[in-house]
Amino acid sequence: MLKINKLAVIGVGLIGGSFALAVKQAGAVRQVIGAGRSADQLTKARLAGVVDEVTENPADAVRGADLVMLAVPVAQSAAILKEIAPVLEAYAVITDVGSTKAGIVKSARTILGSAFARFVPAHPIAGAETSGVGAAHAELFRGRQVVLTPQAETDGSALQRVRELWESCGAETSVLDAETHDAIFASVSHLPHLLAFALVDLIAKRPNAAQLFSFCGSGFRDFTRIAGSSPEMWRDIALANRDALLLDLAAYRNEIIELERLIGEGDGEALERLFARARESRSRYLTPQQTLEQAPKRL
Amino acid sequence: MLKINKLAVIGVGLIGGSFALAVKQAGAVRQVIGAGRSADQLTKARLAGVVDEVTENPADAVRGADLVMLAVPVAQSAAILKEIAPVLEAYAVITDVGSTKAGIVKSARTILGSAFARFVPAHPIAGAETSGVGAAHAELFRGRQVVLTPQAETDGSALQRVRELWESCGAETSVLDAETHDAIFASVSHLPHLLAFALVDLIAKRPNAAQLFSFCGSGFRDFTRIAGSSPEMWRDIALANRDALLLDLAAYRNEIIELERLIGEGDGEALERLFARARESRSRYLTPQQTLEQAPKRL
Repeated sequence: MLKINKLAVIGVGLIGGSFALAVKQAGAVRQVIGAGRSADQLTKARLAGVVDEVTENPADAVRGADLVMLAVPVAQSAAILKEIAPVLEAYAVITDVGSTKAGIVKSARTILGSAFARFVPAHPIAGAETSGVGAAHAELFRGRQVVLTPQAETDGSALQRVRELWESCGAETSVLDAETHDAIFASVSHLPHLLAFALVDLIAKRPNAAQLFSFCGSGFRDFTRIAGSSPEMWRDIALANRDALLLDLAAYRNEIIELERLIGEGDGEALERLFARARESRSRYLTPQQTLEQAPKRL
Repeated sequence: MLKINKLAVIGVGLIGGSFALAVKQAGAVRQVIGAGRSADQLTKARLAGVVDEVTENPADAVRGADLVMLAVPVAQSAAILKEIAPVLEAYAVITDVGSTKAGIVKSARTILGSAFARFVPAHPIAGAETSGVGAAHAELFRGRQVVLTPQAETDGSALQRVRELWESCGAETSVLDAETHDAIFASVSHLPHLLAFALVDLIAKRPNAAQLFSFCGSGFRDFTRIAGSSPEMWRDIALANRDALLLDLAAYRNEIIELERLIGEGDGEALERLFARARESRSRYLTPQQTLEQAPKRL
């Protein structure tokens, strides 16, 4: 694998910080420079050895960088691409880690011009209820999937470079069409997160919330964990994947209406069928490894 | 603590089997007899040393028993109480482990007559995605809560006996009014389980279900774990706690409609506020121990 001379990580949070640590640990990079909005987080990142140098100015960070990674909430990507586009090196490969892909592909195509061929959209499937560089660790991506959504214009060697870097972090890579990616993750990631936020919000608003939380042993606790994710990140995802999510929310609402009908009519047979179908799909579609695996690592 | 001479466990599954193992391990019981519908499960229970003797006839099991535990899906409780009521010893304390309490209290009051004073309704908050005696283990209740819902008629020494037995299993006991119990658990346990079943069902019905499950890293996996619970048990709970659940499902449906509205209108500010409120309630109401604790033990 070709070593990266200078990696610029824009946004040194959980994902950006963990990527920096992982590629350093893999010996895949010579120098890492971190850029971000928060001087405090940047100092923390530098002192913890997550990055070698820091700057609050993304344009400064990308000068001389042969790999530029955007690891910011998706709504900020376009603005940052505009800031860095004029100063990107002609050899720089650019990649991102956003949970939605069609939007960033569209922005990048317009903003980057000819450099768009070296933009490799990526999405590492590794979340946690924590956020911020304090939670970053080199093993976050081990055994995780990273979905790449290259376009017709994407340069083959740029794609290969990003793929190898993720694999050096212990991740498995796969390729999807950007729109397919967004529809899939609306259903298996974004919808579940919204459902968890909605449930925790419903309970938290009640006058007896403290009592309710004190009995949260069964079922509810997993929801609270999911709802511990970054509000800003999920706001951006919800808006960026609006169309797919609205379809899924409406479909889910119909499932709830169906449950209300079955319970209201006392149709135990149909209820049991629905529950059994859900349970059975788990053993049909998940590998034993997936079934056994713990919830995402706590840090 | 007064030692139990003969414990009859009706329904030797995950909960009944684990209780038998735990009280044996605590030295709180001399002999355990298991009764159930499945000869196969009973043989397994006996061979594994979960119970000392087995019978397929609940009435046989309770003869001579000073403690009788019902550990069956809630819809079967009334029929079993009718079977055993005529042969219960005058000194027998009866208890159960159902996830809903108002219904069983009502049935037991009618069926047990004067023996109702020795009926102690209980609900151990310990689930797992597994079921059956093969998953039973003596530590299932350690650190878990057990809610007792005694009535005006309940004999103080019967209540004390059941409380001590659960504490000998490592559980913490508390007391709630039966209706309050049912409303609380509709919100923090039954509703989350139904929401998980509904999501997994929604995904499993899609033509690309296999692909969707293959990307279930973030968020969705916790839902699939919850939806691995026993369909029969949850059918019974959904019907037994019908009124409270219908209120909660309607309230949740309104949360979903609100999310659809905010996403549809692109109201990022309100979305972020909702997510932040949910996240914040987690740190406000959960102890650090609860936040850190893993999802229910895998077996």
